[in-house]
Amino acid sequence: MTKTDEVKRVAQDIKLMRIRGAGKIARAAAEALLTTAQQSKAKSSLSLMKEVETAAKLLLDTRPTAVSLQNSIRRIVNETRIANNRNIKVEKMRQCIVETSTKFIQDSLSAIERIGVIGAGRIEDDDLIMTHCNSATATKVLSTAFANGKHFKVFASETRPRLQGRITAKTLSNLGIPTSLIVDSAIRFFMTKMNKVIVGADAVASNGAVVNKIGTSLMALAAHEARVPFFVTAETYKFSPETVLGQLVKIEERDSSEIILEKELLKMPNVSVRNPAFDVTPPEYIDLIITEKGIIPPQAAIMIIQEEFGSITAEKLEY
Amino acid sequence: MTKTDEVKRVAQDIKLMRIRGAGKIARAAAEALLTTAQQSKAKSSLSLMKEVETAAKLLLDTRPTAVSLQNSIRRIVNETRIANNRNIKVEKMRQCIVETSTKFIQDSLSAIERIGVIGAGRIEDDDLIMTHCNSATATKVLSTAFANGKHFKVFASETRPRLQGRITAKTLSNLGIPTSLIVDSAIRFFMTKMNKVIVGADAVASNGAVVNKIGTSLMALAAHEARVPFFVTAETYKFSPETVLGQLVKIEERDSSEIILEKELLKMPNVSVRNPAFDVTPPEYIDLIITEKGIIPPQAAIMIIQEEFGSITAEKLEY
Amino acid sequence: MTKTDEVKRVAQDIKLMRIRGAGKIARAAAEALLTTAQQSKAKSSLSLMKEVETAAKLLLDTRPTAVSLQNSIRRIVNETRIANNRNIKVEKMRQCIVETSTKFIQDSLSAIERIGVIGAGRIEDDDLIMTHCNSATATKVLSTAFANGKHFKVFASETRPRLQGRITAKTLSNLGIPTSLIVDSAIRFFMTKMNKVIVGADAVASNGAVVNKIGTSLMALAAHEARVPFFVTAETYKFSPETVLGQLVKIEERDSSEIILEKELLKMPNVSVRNPAFDVTPPEYIDLIITEKGIIPPQAAIMIIQEEFGSITAEKLEY
Amino acid sequence: MTKTDEVKRVAQDIKLMRIRGAGKIARAAAEALLTTAQQSKAKSSLSLMKEVETAAKLLLDTRPTAVSLQNSIRRIVNETRIANNRNIKVEKMRQCIVETSTKFIQDSLSAIERIGVIGAGRIEDDDLIMTHCNSATATKVLSTAFANGKHFKVFASETRPRLQGRITAKTLSNLGIPTSLIVDSAIRFFMTKMNKVIVGADAVASNGAVVNKIGTSLMALAAHEARVPFFVTAETYKFSPETVLGQLVKIEERDSSEIILEKELLKMPNVSVRNPAFDVTPPEYIDLIITEKGIIPPQAAIMIIQEEFGSITAEKLEY
Amino acid sequence: MTKTDEVKRVAQDIKLMRIRGAGKIARAAAEALLTTAQQSKAKSSLSLMKEVETAAKLLLDTRPTAVSLQNSIRRIVNETRIANNRNIKVEKMRQCIVETSTKFIQDSLSAIERIGVIGAGRIEDDDLIMTHCNSATATKVLSTAFANGKHFKVFASETRPRLQGRITAKTLSNLGIPTSLIVDSAIRFFMTKMNKVIVGADAVASNGAVVNKIGTSLMALAAHEARVPFFVTAETYKFSPETVLGQLVKIEERDSSEIILEKELLKMPNVSVRNPAFDVTPPEYIDLIITEKGIIPPQAAIMIIQEEFGSITAEKLEY
Amino acid sequence: MTKTDEVKRVAQDIKLMRIRGAGKIARAAAEALLTTAQQSKAKSSLSLMKEVETAAKLLLDTRPTAVSLQNSIRRIVNETRIANNRNIKVEKMRQCIVETSTKFIQDSLSAIERIGVIGAGRIEDDDLIMTHCNSATATKVLSTAFANGKHFKVFASETRPRLQGRITAKTLSNLGIPTSLIVDSAIRFFMTKMNKVIVGADAVASNGAVVNKIGTSLMALAAHEARVPFFVTAETYKFSPETVLGQLVKIEERDSSEIILEKELLKMPNVSVRNPAFDVTPPEYIDLIITEKGIIPPQAAIMIIQEEFGSITAEKLEY
Repeated sequence: MTKTDEVKRVAQDIKLMRIRGAGKIARAAAEALLTTAQQSKAKSSLSLMKEVETAAKLLLDTRPTAVSLQNSIRRIVNETRIANNRNIKVEKMRQCIVETSTKFIQDSLSAIERIGVIGAGRIEDDDLIMTHCNSATATKVLSTAFANGKHFKVFASETRPRLQGRITAKTLSNLGIPTSLIVDSAIRFFMTKMNKVIVGADAVASNGAVVNKIGTSLMALAAHEARVPFFVTAETYKFSPETVLGQLVKIEERDSSEIILEKELLKMPNVSVRNPAFDVTPPEYIDLIITEKGIIPPQAAIMIIQEEFGSITAEKLEY
Repeated sequence: MTKTDEVKRVAQDIKLMRIRGAGKIARAAAEALLTTAQQSKAKSSLSLMKEVETAAKLLLDTRPTAVSLQNSIRRIVNETRIANNRNIKVEKMRQCIVETSTKFIQDSLSAIERIGVIGAGRIEDDDLIMTHCNSATATKVLSTAFANGKHFKVFASETRPRLQGRITAKTLSNLGIPTSLIVDSAIRFFMTKMNKVIVGADAVASNGAVVNKIGTSLMALAAHEARVPFFVTAETYKFSPETVLGQLVKIEERDSSEIILEKELLKMPNVSVRNPAFDVTPPEYIDLIITEKGIIPPQAAIMIIQEEFGSITAEKLEY
Repeated sequence: MTKTDEVKRVAQDIKLMRIRGAGKIARAAAEALLTTAQQSKAKSSLSLMKEVETAAKLLLDTRPTAVSLQNSIRRIVNETRIANNRNIKVEKMRQCIVETSTKFIQDSLSAIERIGVIGAGRIEDDDLIMTHCNSATATKVLSTAFANGKHFKVFASETRPRLQGRITAKTLSNLGIPTSLIVDSAIRFFMTKMNKVIVGADAVASNGAVVNKIGTSLMALAAHEARVPFFVTAETYKFSPETVLGQLVKIEERDSSEIILEKELLKMPNVSVRNPAFDVTPPEYIDLIITEKGIIPPQAAIMIIQEEFGSITAEKLEY
Repeated sequence: MTKTDEVKRVAQDIKLMRIRGAGKIARAAAEALLTTAQQSKAKSSLSLMKEVETAAKLLLDTRPTAVSLQNSIRRIVNETRIANNRNIKVEKMRQCIVETSTKFIQDSLSAIERIGVIGAGRIEDDDLIMTHCNSATATKVLSTAFANGKHFKVFASETRPRLQGRITAKTLSNLGIPTSLIVDSAIRFFMTKMNKVIVGADAVASNGAVVNKIGTSLMALAAHEARVPFFVTAETYKFSPETVLGQLVKIEERDSSEIILEKELLKMPNVSVRNPAFDVTPPEYIDLIITEKGIIPPQAAIMIIQEEFGSITAEKLEY
Repeated sequence: MTKTDEVKRVAQDIKLMRIRGAGKIARAAAEALLTTAQQSKAKSSLSLMKEVETAAKLLLDTRPTAVSLQNSIRRIVNETRIANNRNIKVEKMRQCIVETSTKFIQDSLSAIERIGVIGAGRIEDDDLIMTHCNSATATKVLSTAFANGKHFKVFASETRPRLQGRITAKTLSNLGIPTSLIVDSAIRFFMTKMNKVIVGADAVASNGAVVNKIGTSLMALAAHEARVPFFVTAETYKFSPETVLGQLVKIEERDSSEIILEKELLKMPNVSVRNPAFDVTPPEYIDLIITEKGIIPPQAAIMIIQEEFGSITAEKLEY
Repeated sequence: MTKTDEVKRVAQDIKLMRIRGAGKIARAAAEALLTTAQQSKAKSSLSLMKEVETAAKLLLDTRPTAVSLQNSIRRIVNETRIANNRNIKVEKMRQCIVETSTKFIQDSLSAIERIGVIGAGRIEDDDLIMTHCNSATATKVLSTAFANGKHFKVFASETRPRLQGRITAKTLSNLGIPTSLIVDSAIRFFMTKMNKVIVGADAVASNGAVVNKIGTSLMALAAHEARVPFFVTAETYKFSPETVLGQLVKIEERDSSEIILEKELLKMPNVSVRNPAFDVTPPEYIDLIITEKGIIPPQAAIMIIQEEFGSITAEKLEY
């Protein structure tokens, strides 16, 4: 398989959700760019850069609203361009791309571990903890705390329409963590008994607002009402620098067939289905964001963006 | 079929949810007592009363937490006892029971119509209206308003685990009312666009708190946050006089198989399912309760109880 | 001048706002019906009733959204019909109409006095009190308290567009009450220093919501934010029985010329003016409603309606 | 001892707080009027009434702000006057006073029992319940629930300055109810763990506001913040009819020596002590008021006043 | 005209509001210092610096509470002093002052453009947007979005007492943007229909509180109540470093004649006028502040101050 | 007395609360390490470091939850280690320790002065200011403002169980500042009259939450309810860098004898005492934190930690 095929395949997999989850998408894209560089037959650093840029564009178009994908590609393309500006040889540039991609992937994986360690510090014995959907980092916090000997119980909401909550329940069950599975609409019923909520994030905006699976903001609202601390786990590459410059994180709307069978829907001529994939949790409902670089209040999200992507006063990073 | 068989069959149907919905249960019980009286071979009014009381007890035990069932039976048994105290003949008592039962059923049905008329006055052109589950009275408000020529759209939440929201969507679709079907967790996402929420009630407590399908209080919370008026439709026989005297409305918890297949659950040894059927919406999240006797703020629920069941200072009505 | 001319003149005066204020309109309509009865040459009680009904309709059409006008006319027409049903002579009916009208007018005037007395009990020395627009009852509370020797200061908002706040300021100044005049947008700036707010009402709905001059609900919101008690003064004939049955109090929108000169507006081709005359203050922002029959929390508004207009379970009163 | 001496002694005991607590004061006053009637040597019913009125005035002056005292005396004096209007003989009037007083005392005592029964229905196994000060009715709810076999724990705040919380702790301890004693300032620290709060009342206003021991409104605020249900127990004779007519419940301020020794205070020349005995809990922080006549939301307080003291539209009851 | 005359003229124009608006004042002061330097006949850099300091003091005294004026002058005087410390020649210093002033003016103007571009990214088709007073930056956001092809409508409050809302309405009308003009007291009436609010700022404090035209905080409160996002546009030179060190932004109170004619006021001997020019919007009611350096949550205002004026730990900058 | 004795004595004094208050503890520990260094007979810098580390450990164990103690020792031990890494002579290291310790003590003392100056800028004439417990920095703000000629009054809560509020009252009284002493439960009663609240801090977490004497969060809640600005004074060495990494500030629970005499408690076999020393005030109830480096909103606490302890992305500082 040629490198182009490989990139196309990854792009297709992301598009069709065979690869899904903000972290996995970001790493798959980095991997694809790495492969692009490794398999390239470019004779000049300039043409290698062009090839990488072409692959980058292809990947970006699969999920144009995914912040983690943008940040993954941005990092690699930026380094490629910087390399290009230094007039280096093609081999050197290839090496640079491979290293940058590899580092992104490794950082991304170790960020999950690190968030697990930091977040586990906040779990206490006898905690009742609610979670939503299926987040690698939120699950890592729970598994790390459990491995550290903490005794607690988890309430996992099933997360319609795709029922990822069942995956979470199964994962926790396999680890030995007692878990209760509930329907999404029972969130408020059980919230008053909870001691905390932990969820993941697809993206974090400059004001600390968190984009995550539909229903997250409803859980946050119920937690806020019951004064239950609401924690978000998010690797720093999920923070969106574009939001500093006024760009909104866009919310994808998915197909009706995720909610109801086509043939059932056809029987209801005046019924349409609305199926937004994510919602936005406002910062005032979030107590803390747990990143691999420490715990921050949501209002400090802009500090993370400043550290990761340069001064908040910088121009928009184009690529 | 003997009268006892008939009562047993109705009791069984209620227990197994073949008959369901607060109103239908109440009417089915009234019908069963009516049949009991009609088919009774009792020679004295006292033994007829005993038969009715026995049937009443059987019916009450099927859903011991259903307020509408209690009120339906309470009314008929009370009248039977009053009749008994007047030392009337058995035929006269039979007639009394038939009339009381028939009147309860008719009142219950005309209450739906009346709530439709009163509630329709609050629907305005271009309204976006959210609803939850499948309520006869809430649907009647919508259909009456639509029949009156009002143009509006409805957002129906699917209402896991039993997806009664689809029934609502289908009913509205058949009437020609444009409807959007959404998952329960998307309630907050769409709430800011709504102009009002209308839901039914299984029971109303003396402080105006409303017991209804799980998820109702979450929708009320989201409406409250977005300052969207939240209307409850409830026939007066759903108001609970016992709550005046300190008794709580109990929340039924149903089988796990409603949420996940038994065989799936067996694969998760540390996972249990929690499946409460109802939740309680506090009065501060309810703007108005639409009854067949007029629109009241939830704090006036106790006035309805006083009018329907006698002075709030009365002793608990035993039967 | 014939009686018809007199009714037409009053109707015209109400329409053109030469007679304005909920109380004055109500009394003018009662006066006009009284005159109608006095000057009628009807030979039968039936034709006298018809004349009164015709006059009533004419008057009602001038301000179809004014609750006080409706209640004033409702009372007189109802008594006329009851009289008619008793088959009395025309002179007796005339007398009945004169007495009912006169009583309404007298009750309306003495209600202002009584509200002044009751409300004055809540004014304390050194109070800083904010008010809005120009309400006869709110002013009476202040003047009665001042006459009782209480020392306090008033902040009157100017109440754009018609600046009725200046009339309030002048009235209070003439009484010797120290008053500060402020623009409406300074309400929040001064609110934290206030001890209470007192405003009048054009109408009170069954849930305790108060319809009053545009800006009232903004003042209530600012008072609620600063936890300053918010008092409404309202005669019981301003309570709306129709709202029990689902009818909304409609908000009149007035001419742009109240806000900006026509010639100025013409210079702005893309600018329109929106000029609602009233707004609705929700019951949760109202601490107490002071009526001539006692002080009630807004949630007890429905009790007043029950006492004044019959059981809340009654059908809509048609006339 | 003459009857006058007896009344004077009781008056003195109330004034010096040898008799204290809203219920005990009310019963002591009723007892004193009963004694007055029994020992009176009046020859006419008119002079007996005068004697009773004189005694009433003496008793009222001891704690002019105590609503329960006013209501106790109001009831007896009113009956005496009604008797007087019927031109009955002196013996008949004496009998009437004795019976009214006795009935008040018995009703007052059985109200405590009844509140215990009604309130106990709201206590659940494993409840953590906070209470403040030392209330006969709140304690009765706890002891009744415990006697009914409910298992729960109580957190009693010590209630500075007079530390009545210790009396509560001791009473509960003697009953066998596990209790934690905390300082008043730790209320918020423990509130999130509580399932409910139960406190008594010195007076209830027409809008449902509750006057009770200083610190009650702070506990209510903390409960409201944590969404912990806040229950008030109050006999109906603690409801204040005067508040319907605009009169405020006055807050007594007590001596500095309750807080700090005189000699300590003298060392701080620029320090004064402020020692209010009660505070006012607003109705929006109260979930339910448990009376002997049923559980009501605070907004229905005016219904109790209407039932107990006549129409809310009545003139102030003078005596 | 001598340089002194020129400075005096500008100072006078600022004082008498012939030059007004935070941005225009700041640029006029920079212009005046530039002219001072250009026309100066000083022989030494020291005496040139003294002249500039004298002019600076004169200008500062015209509006001692205007943060933008302070920041404009601070920047130029600081650079002048730094130049002086380097012992440069007079011509060099003159050049330095001219350049610093020119740069401030240019930066100030391009900041408006930049805020327009960044803010326009947040405007969406079909938005209803409320604004208050007449802000150059808020208007620029609207005009840029409109030029970008966005379709939306604006609600402009008239902004008593000086009615600058009419200027905004006229400007938007000329651009072709559909606009509704409303009285300030109708803010809450229309707020529930709005999608966002955009206003300018006179000053921003270290905690993100915004000082702006009286009424702004009332609009923010109404937006907060209705959960409508509230955006503030503010160039970074409007951020106040003094507030970090405990100094409050002072609120100017203006003449009564802005509100009511002197002769009208004279007829009301007990009436005074209170006319604060600005109010303070607390950070919890502000969603985002749009600066020329990016969008920040109000809590990050201190980061802007740190970047613009040095470490937050620095001593107060004296001049 | 040997150096070890000296360290042991200080450790004992801290443990037994003979030395208490976050600042005094921190300075006492620095003093003890200084003495350790001065009196050490170590021959090598390595063994001197070991001695200091041993002393540090001893001191840390006395109050393992005291952030100020940790930060004081951390600073000195870190410098000692850095010195050790540079391979310096023992005398040089001794000098380094002495200087670092001395500087910490001096900085700590001058921080109090500086906070006094900065905070005094926020006190205004006629202010009513509430305070809790006995804080050196909060008192310094008050005394500095008073020395600057500001006229205001203070309400000091007595602060059970140890009544440190009396110390505050006495201190203020001696300075001539009029002060009212109140019980802790009267906080809400007086709060509506206050203009601001000023309290100290034992520790500040990365999200701006403040750990301080039990009752502080209750006062903050009451201030928040009444919209009274709530200020915290805190030296930067009270900010906790560990909280960035997920570690919670632990709350010490103290002996029951602080609340009730042992013999009294023994009479109540079912009563236990709960006596937490501190509580946590959430950042949303805090308006500003006044540090010696400027005033910050609580959300900027993480900026202070970044400045004082290095990047928020740094690993945990071990010692």
